[in-house]
Amino acid sequence: MNSIGKLFIVTSFGESHGPCVGVVVDGCPAGLPLTRAEIQREVDRRKPGEGAAATARREKDEVEVLSGLRDGHTTGAPIALLVRNEDVDDRDYDRIRSLLRPGHADYTALVKYGGFADGRGGGRFSGRITAGFVMAGAVARKLLATLGVEIAAHTVEIGGIEAKAASFEDIKTRAAQDPLRCADAAASKKMSDLIAKVKAEGDSLGGVIEGVAAGVPAGLGEPVFAGLDGELARALLAIPAVKGVAFGAGFAAARMKGSENNDPFALKNGKIITTGNNAGGILGGITDGMPVVVRVAVKPTASIAIEQATVDVAKMTEATIKVGGRHDACIVPRAVPVVEAMMAVTIGDFALRAGIVPRVIK
Amino acid sequence: MNSIGKLFIVTSFGESHGPCVGVVVDGCPAGLPLTRAEIQREVDRRKPGEGAAATARREKDEVEVLSGLRDGHTTGAPIALLVRNEDVDDRDYDRIRSLLRPGHADYTALVKYGGFADGRGGGRFSGRITAGFVMAGAVARKLLATLGVEIAAHTVEIGGIEAKAASFEDIKTRAAQDPLRCADAAASKKMSDLIAKVKAEGDSLGGVIEGVAAGVPAGLGEPVFAGLDGELARALLAIPAVKGVAFGAGFAAARMKGSENNDPFALKNGKIITTGNNAGGILGGITDGMPVVVRVAVKPTASIAIEQATVDVAKMTEATIKVGGRHDACIVPRAVPVVEAMMAVTIGDFALRAGIVPRVIK
Amino acid sequence: MNSIGKLFIVTSFGESHGPCVGVVVDGCPAGLPLTRAEIQREVDRRKPGEGAAATARREKDEVEVLSGLRDGHTTGAPIALLVRNEDVDDRDYDRIRSLLRPGHADYTALVKYGGFADGRGGGRFSGRITAGFVMAGAVARKLLATLGVEIAAHTVEIGGIEAKAASFEDIKTRAAQDPLRCADAAASKKMSDLIAKVKAEGDSLGGVIEGVAAGVPAGLGEPVFAGLDGELARALLAIPAVKGVAFGAGFAAARMKGSENNDPFALKNGKIITTGNNAGGILGGITDGMPVVVRVAVKPTASIAIEQATVDVAKMTEATIKVGGRHDACIVPRAVPVVEAMMAVTIGDFALRAGIVPRVIK
Amino acid sequence: MNSIGKLFIVTSFGESHGPCVGVVVDGCPAGLPLTRAEIQREVDRRKPGEGAAATARREKDEVEVLSGLRDGHTTGAPIALLVRNEDVDDRDYDRIRSLLRPGHADYTALVKYGGFADGRGGGRFSGRITAGFVMAGAVARKLLATLGVEIAAHTVEIGGIEAKAASFEDIKTRAAQDPLRCADAAASKKMSDLIAKVKAEGDSLGGVIEGVAAGVPAGLGEPVFAGLDGELARALLAIPAVKGVAFGAGFAAARMKGSENNDPFALKNGKIITTGNNAGGILGGITDGMPVVVRVAVKPTASIAIEQATVDVAKMTEATIKVGGRHDACIVPRAVPVVEAMMAVTIGDFALRAGIVPRVIK
Repeated sequence: MNSIGKLFIVTSFGESHGPCVGVVVDGCPAGLPLTRAEIQREVDRRKPGEGAAATARREKDEVEVLSGLRDGHTTGAPIALLVRNEDVDDRDYDRIRSLLRPGHADYTALVKYGGFADGRGGGRFSGRITAGFVMAGAVARKLLATLGVEIAAHTVEIGGIEAKAASFEDIKTRAAQDPLRCADAAASKKMSDLIAKVKAEGDSLGGVIEGVAAGVPAGLGEPVFAGLDGELARALLAIPAVKGVAFGAGFAAARMKGSENNDPFALKNGKIITTGNNAGGILGGITDGMPVVVRVAVKPTASIAIEQATVDVAKMTEATIKVGGRHDACIVPRAVPVVEAMMAVTIGDFALRAGIVPRVIK
Repeated sequence: MNSIGKLFIVTSFGESHGPCVGVVVDGCPAGLPLTRAEIQREVDRRKPGEGAAATARREKDEVEVLSGLRDGHTTGAPIALLVRNEDVDDRDYDRIRSLLRPGHADYTALVKYGGFADGRGGGRFSGRITAGFVMAGAVARKLLATLGVEIAAHTVEIGGIEAKAASFEDIKTRAAQDPLRCADAAASKKMSDLIAKVKAEGDSLGGVIEGVAAGVPAGLGEPVFAGLDGELARALLAIPAVKGVAFGAGFAAARMKGSENNDPFALKNGKIITTGNNAGGILGGITDGMPVVVRVAVKPTASIAIEQATVDVAKMTEATIKVGGRHDACIVPRAVPVVEAMMAVTIGDFALRAGIVPRVIK
Repeated sequence: MNSIGKLFIVTSFGESHGPCVGVVVDGCPAGLPLTRAEIQREVDRRKPGEGAAATARREKDEVEVLSGLRDGHTTGAPIALLVRNEDVDDRDYDRIRSLLRPGHADYTALVKYGGFADGRGGGRFSGRITAGFVMAGAVARKLLATLGVEIAAHTVEIGGIEAKAASFEDIKTRAAQDPLRCADAAASKKMSDLIAKVKAEGDSLGGVIEGVAAGVPAGLGEPVFAGLDGELARALLAIPAVKGVAFGAGFAAARMKGSENNDPFALKNGKIITTGNNAGGILGGITDGMPVVVRVAVKPTASIAIEQATVDVAKMTEATIKVGGRHDACIVPRAVPVVEAMMAVTIGDFALRAGIVPRVIK
Repeated sequence: MNSIGKLFIVTSFGESHGPCVGVVVDGCPAGLPLTRAEIQREVDRRKPGEGAAATARREKDEVEVLSGLRDGHTTGAPIALLVRNEDVDDRDYDRIRSLLRPGHADYTALVKYGGFADGRGGGRFSGRITAGFVMAGAVARKLLATLGVEIAAHTVEIGGIEAKAASFEDIKTRAAQDPLRCADAAASKKMSDLIAKVKAEGDSLGGVIEGVAAGVPAGLGEPVFAGLDGELARALLAIPAVKGVAFGAGFAAARMKGSENNDPFALKNGKIITTGNNAGGILGGITDGMPVVVRVAVKPTASIAIEQATVDVAKMTEATIKVGGRHDACIVPRAVPVVEAMMAVTIGDFALRAGIVPRVIK
């Protein structure tokens, strides 16, 4: 199932080493000002940086608009977008085809697709498909901007190194400019050093990303089975390597008392707010008008140059494997804009469901 | 949206203080042996125990079968089930109607339903609606049993007290018999004492539940947007008070190196296994044949007898509130069978999607 | 799949001879004034009349509200409704269980449900389940009334006898009071005579129903795959015995020239209208502001007391069958309110999709 | 909503005069042998012929595979396909932009998309988008072939001229080679003459297409709301210009007695069959093993060179219009492969839902 969303529907296609990675965005109202350049800008944010965490694969990732935009506006028709795969190098992958890579979907894909899946570079399971997510996110973000909703994510932990808490302003500015997408420069430096060290060992690191959506109106969410939290979790778990999702205080809430965890209500300029945000902006699956805050756990990159035990499925014998190729030692920073994109796509869908987006944007 | 599932579709209805709580289960193949008594047994497991954690509300919760079962088998038609609400006491609720209860959905429901929602006892947001989840789960568990899939959950943490790791056997036996659904008797005792203490203070506790599905065949899951993890997360977040979901090593994976987190593959009796299970049985959104392991963070009960700051929405003034009524000081134990139910419902749906359940069970 | 609709979701349950027939309506906004009595009124319209066409089965069909209504308004929660089956007589059915009834779903149900389906009285395939459709329709009609949409259907043909064209006013008044739901009294008399004659022969008749929705705003419909016409067709074909659906001029349009079939545009009081309505109010899957007009072909009642060739599935031999029991000789009149209901449910869903229904009705 | 299907999901994108027309097919099992050339062959069948009915627009329609196929097999990933628009001539369209074309979706699109829709050549409402349907159909037909299902459609009526009944063999051979896709050569000649005559008058014709699916196993269909008939109707009504859909005897069944319309059951080589097929292979929404037979009414081409009354929406005045451009005087023949495609897509989806397609095709 490569579609997500009910009224704002995103369909993903493409593989890591096929002709392209793309997306169809259906349900975006007509009249939204949107240019190819704006989508390109989001895609560019997902590109690998120059630092220690980065892959050697370099794609131009030039966005091609196949449908749905005309004269700088959405037309109401499905918006099909793609980026071509150009810097494709199959050599490393073919060598290890029969050896299951631990932590990868090689085995599960083999069971499900019976050896027919295009496994080069991870195929559909590659982080590369998130280029499509980001293109869809660009559309959603532009739509949400008409409602005053802004979304920003940042790296809050890598390899156990935690960043200090950051304001939304800091996330939008400092984190956006940091090579590791971390708003805390000191922590970023430590993370960077650790990544370099671990990379030199052929190993990899994971981390935690926090996403924040500010300006989300109260009342979005469709309990009991389509609460905003549940749908966000589903969307975020579609990002490769994400293993956990938690809202507001998240797992820490499980250790609090009710008197600590409950966010008191108060009035501010005649408007109901909460004075804390342990709820992460969601109560009963519905937004309460506070920022929506979600944390996602990203596991360490599965591709490592260290010898691991595995199985050779051709011979059905036990074996060992070292995974070569061009991999990020830590994909956390590159996943930051993807978290933003999936948040945007999900919240955009709920804005449409709630009927608060006009049928035609004017 | 009160339906979940694609081929095994569960529709929830009913409110805490309305006539009943019910569920319609659509898509269960015909021929599955299933009796009212079997569904009743699951519902009984959800009832409050005798211990400190328990509510004073006592419901008979007698399952009424409205459709879809005949002669001890499913017919292939939708299975409609309900339990009546009988021990309904509106008094405490009416008194505080205009005071928003912190940590509850009072405010978000007000925004979304404009004061028309049946707010008595939490209405649709009450834990009571999970009686319907458990009835649906009973159907799904019976269906999964035909595939050799077993599901069991247990309390692994309450108020910061952690239980020792437990085998699947222990979860099924020890935890099932423990009043707090904890497999570790010593930890359970400590948790129980802490609950009693906190309850006496008018406060409440949260915790963590671990759910395990054993015998799940490899190959279930529909990436990229309907991975088993994403769909499980969505289903589990529909349980009131759940604030986070994580698979396998979960957030701990974010602190591991790739060499620590990757589960090596090996052969066992000619079958491919992994020698660890940090992945929680899911790689790339698809089951790998290892047990599916998920943890959910449950926040402390929002209803506490301690004075909290809030807003009176009738007067639009700041105010304070103490929430009376009959509440569990810790709902974690009662959520355990609900976690099992939502796991069963989700995995059952994927078994149907994968085409591994016969059209008619014989 | 016993659910239909995207935002206004109707889930049907129950069998002809089980405990009840019911429905869950999910997605209706809160605040809609709606009483049990109003739903009852619609259900009463579906009851068999006194005339020749009628069945002998007499049900009280008292609507029971299980959830979703309080103090005369919708609450925003799922609305669960049922009517009990009371006048159940299994005798005739059991006798012929192994003989497939021609024109019925006995054989297809046997293949699909492997003999586990509750076949008494047609089970899920009985016209009786449309009592649920009508309850859902009652909710949808009330919702549409807030937009000024009115829906009325009438019998336009029975056994080849055609009624004269009728105005919307005539459909709402004359047809509603006619025992055959026909606005043309003379034709109704002839139809009635023919039904009596054919019934005496143990045979049955079909006919054509026309449904009209007036006041539907232009702009409803979600092409290309969820045009209003396509979704209406799907909803109407869920009514047992419906074999065809056509919009506006329908199959007659296939014999027209473009110059005859095209509806010219004109201005009326500054508003764009068409001066004809061969399009049935739908162009490109989207409403154009003219009345939505649809015709459905209803096949003759399959249960006839005339000997027919069939197969005995127990013995796997050829055999003959005469179908006894209490059947309508012509179900067309009773299907009229069901056509209205399914139109209401579908158009109501599209009104929600278009965002023209407020989140809370006030 | 530009997606259709539950497990075999087709997403359409592209406009008549944009860069391309395309489709994403999601849910096709891995391992299905399928080449670009096979898809091309189906697309070529949709091209305009040389006869009187044809448009002057000539597109190469070269199929481009963006994803989902590798080494001559499906991979299990979404299959994205497109054809470029090359022979695009905007001139005629721009001239009449403010004049609503009667019978077209100009007005409804204006209401829905507020003037932002790409209206050139009909945009999303053009018959050209069915090139995408046909590409999706090519995938579905290949999938269905593995189950022994064959689909063929033919022209049975144009401008009131009816073709003789045709065997499935004749449909597959004679109709496939006839310029009007009519199996009755004599009727085809008359139709052709009539089209030439009407075209010379600047007018257009409609007609009726019959689609037949042979070899469909009994048991496909998901009543009550996803019967095969309902879903087929929805899919077929997505084809521009289709105004009605009827199964088996269709509207003629409404004039039969039960004794005439019921298809008697019989045994043939130990297998249950019906000796007639007034049901069109569907009873209770489920296939009965007989050929699935459906008729669709196609209205006459809306674009005619005859002066028609209309409204100028720029000036909001009444006006007249003659529609120039390159149009088929009768699109019925070109719609024939599109009917086949939508039948294939729908039946393919139900085969997957029924679990009778292997997870991996081998």
